[in-house]
Amino acid sequence: MQAEIVSIGSELLLGQIVDTNSAVISRHLAGIGLDLYYKTAVGDNLARLVAVLRQALERSEVVITTGGIGPTADDVTREAVALATSRELVFSQQLMTQIEAFFRARGFKLSPSNRRQAFVPRGAIPVENPVGTAPAFIVEVGDRCVITLPGVPREMEHLLVTRVVPYLRERYGLKGEIRLRVLRVVGLGESGIGELLADFMEKGRNPTVGTLAHLGQVDVRIAAKGPDAETAQRLIEPVEAAIRGRLGDLIFGVDAETLEGVILAHVQRLGARVAVAEWGSAGAVADRLSQGLGRGFAGGIVLGDEGGAGRLGADFPRGSSAEVKARILADRVRAWHDVRVGGATVFEGDRATEPPVTVVGLAAALDGGVESREYRFGGDLPSMKIRAATLVLDLLRRTLARLP
Amino acid sequence: MQAEIVSIGSELLLGQIVDTNSAVISRHLAGIGLDLYYKTAVGDNLARLVAVLRQALERSEVVITTGGIGPTADDVTREAVALATSRELVFSQQLMTQIEAFFRARGFKLSPSNRRQAFVPRGAIPVENPVGTAPAFIVEVGDRCVITLPGVPREMEHLLVTRVVPYLRERYGLKGEIRLRVLRVVGLGESGIGELLADFMEKGRNPTVGTLAHLGQVDVRIAAKGPDAETAQRLIEPVEAAIRGRLGDLIFGVDAETLEGVILAHVQRLGARVAVAEWGSAGAVADRLSQGLGRGFAGGIVLGDEGGAGRLGADFPRGSSAEVKARILADRVRAWHDVRVGGATVFEGDRATEPPVTVVGLAAALDGGVESREYRFGGDLPSMKIRAATLVLDLLRRTLARLP
Repeated sequence: MQAEIVSIGSELLLGQIVDTNSAVISRHLAGIGLDLYYKTAVGDNLARLVAVLRQALERSEVVITTGGIGPTADDVTREAVALATSRELVFSQQLMTQIEAFFRARGFKLSPSNRRQAFVPRGAIPVENPVGTAPAFIVEVGDRCVITLPGVPREMEHLLVTRVVPYLRERYGLKGEIRLRVLRVVGLGESGIGELLADFMEKGRNPTVGTLAHLGQVDVRIAAKGPDAETAQRLIEPVEAAIRGRLGDLIFGVDAETLEGVILAHVQRLGARVAVAEWGSAGAVADRLSQGLGRGFAGGIVLGDEGGAGRLGADFPRGSSAEVKARILADRVRAWHDVRVGGATVFEGDRATEPPVTVVGLAAALDGGVESREYRFGGDLPSMKIRAATLVLDLLRRTLARLP
Repeated sequence: MQAEIVSIGSELLLGQIVDTNSAVISRHLAGIGLDLYYKTAVGDNLARLVAVLRQALERSEVVITTGGIGPTADDVTREAVALATSRELVFSQQLMTQIEAFFRARGFKLSPSNRRQAFVPRGAIPVENPVGTAPAFIVEVGDRCVITLPGVPREMEHLLVTRVVPYLRERYGLKGEIRLRVLRVVGLGESGIGELLADFMEKGRNPTVGTLAHLGQVDVRIAAKGPDAETAQRLIEPVEAAIRGRLGDLIFGVDAETLEGVILAHVQRLGARVAVAEWGSAGAVADRLSQGLGRGFAGGIVLGDEGGAGRLGADFPRGSSAEVKARILADRVRAWHDVRVGGATVFEGDRATEPPVTVVGLAAALDGGVESREYRFGGDLPSMKIRAATLVLDLLRRTLARLP
């Protein structure tokens, strides 16, 4: 069983966007044991696209396209798939009804060009798109198929996971299973983790263990392959236990768990609430604590160009370090909101060093007490915001975890 | 003149890394007027790689490969290029001397496998690599060529800029230049813009005009090709003027300009400051207004699970809509911070509809007056935050732009 990916869009060839979709598709195909041998990127050009699709169908059973199914005239994927599979394009009332419903629900105005999106090659299986306006479709050609997905990453991945992967499993009887466990780690860098886990990361092992670094956080991914899900799962368990033994409470969660989710679970368990003050991270912490609709986040204050900590009743002794300011802010925002838990970030430039660094003070206040840390960051501001948010959330997590 | 890129490495097909190299190469090729029609990614497999290279050489004058020239046995690019161009691999003392010097200078130990890297197809032009251990090379085949570059992004780009681009300009007498102009638009969707600009977006025009949608924002890209930079620039101007005539003040900026940058420029010009209150967008607006180190952002308030607008002195009449609440909040946060400009977002679920939608009230307050809008959003919370932030920033921009 062989698959290939065709990414479509002139913006890919001009280098204006990086093709992240094909990496996402690759990972999902690997997860069901489909071998991927080629990826091709081609522009919005009908003749070239048709040629690429024909070649792909000659050498691979499964061809997945992404991009070029928007409403505008430069989107030619529908026409190209029809030509490459020798079918005509026909209007699908089913898809049109779905597109109309999507627009109606959002109060968007349907434009005449959206009607283009309801055309599919004759005999195609329409794939409804509940998260966007571009419906997808599958054309079966003998034992082969062309699967046409949108280019918008969020829509593409949603349809891939909910519709395409189940379709491929069913049609091609793909029974090999891969099970994944992701351990989420804060407090140690990727190379440090790599050294601690070197023996698990050797080639040719099953499960494989790999790391993926985010800003301020590292995922340790355990992937096991087995003839069925249960066997794959059983292979994961001893490896996970051994890794937990080495990393301990650096691991804050598993799989899709987030630091903010762990914190909100703690404060809900305690019947408490948390408030934050941000002077530098500028809303990055509040943004994460307000994900989802859970209770427990009382609110945030973002300090601007002149600070304005006085509005919270905070008063900094002359010459306070970033860490001391963060301690005072965390306690004051807690009191101002009249809640038990407060967090704070403070960024201060240190221009005496070359290259310049940012001194980052972080604090977590609980009832009367305060825990704090100070870091020195380099890099651009957006990256520093994300790292600071992760580290102050980890400080809050550790503070809350100690409560019974 | 036609070029294509072949990215080599099994990690690309497993989705373990995103291929950023090919986007970088694309941009450099576009800059010298070389047309790129295809990008192919293929694994470290000799037979498949040879087939891909042969096809690339048939359809394109310039083939650029990246990856697969390391010292290990799984790197087969050298062998594949030799086979695809029907030459044997020969040892180059010149490259070996350079590799040895590179290792010596850094105190690295040369391993026997590094000797592999000194083999190139007979007649190849060696390209010295001063920033890494993998030397590159160019094989000329009649008027065509295969240019083999490393996969390490920093090494690849260094060799591309310093050696490959000058080589291509010289060998193919490339004098063409591409100039880009991006018009940044808020307030009309991609399909609406596509209809307004349909004539400019027809195939085969120069400049080409295309659109790229972000959440709540669309880029209109004008790309002109000319024999030199000046001519290309002159081709852009009338098209830009005509598009501006149609889109008017939906265009908020050009190229790398941002909405928040435009707003901060306005408030700085006016000697004013802006503050925001967010009940739903949860820091997304504050985050954007605090980008960079410019003055003018006084601070933000993120309302949490129980609102807490009372802390700002806000009082909502019973039954207030999201829009009315946003109007009150925008004015109160302005007064609380004692500044001239205030913005606010309010999200409220409407569970009466199916699928559920979120009613989003947005407001911009300036001195005594308030402008506001109400939208109905679907989709996930992170997307809604980004869209709401973009739309309230646009409302602030429009309010500020009216001031002399």
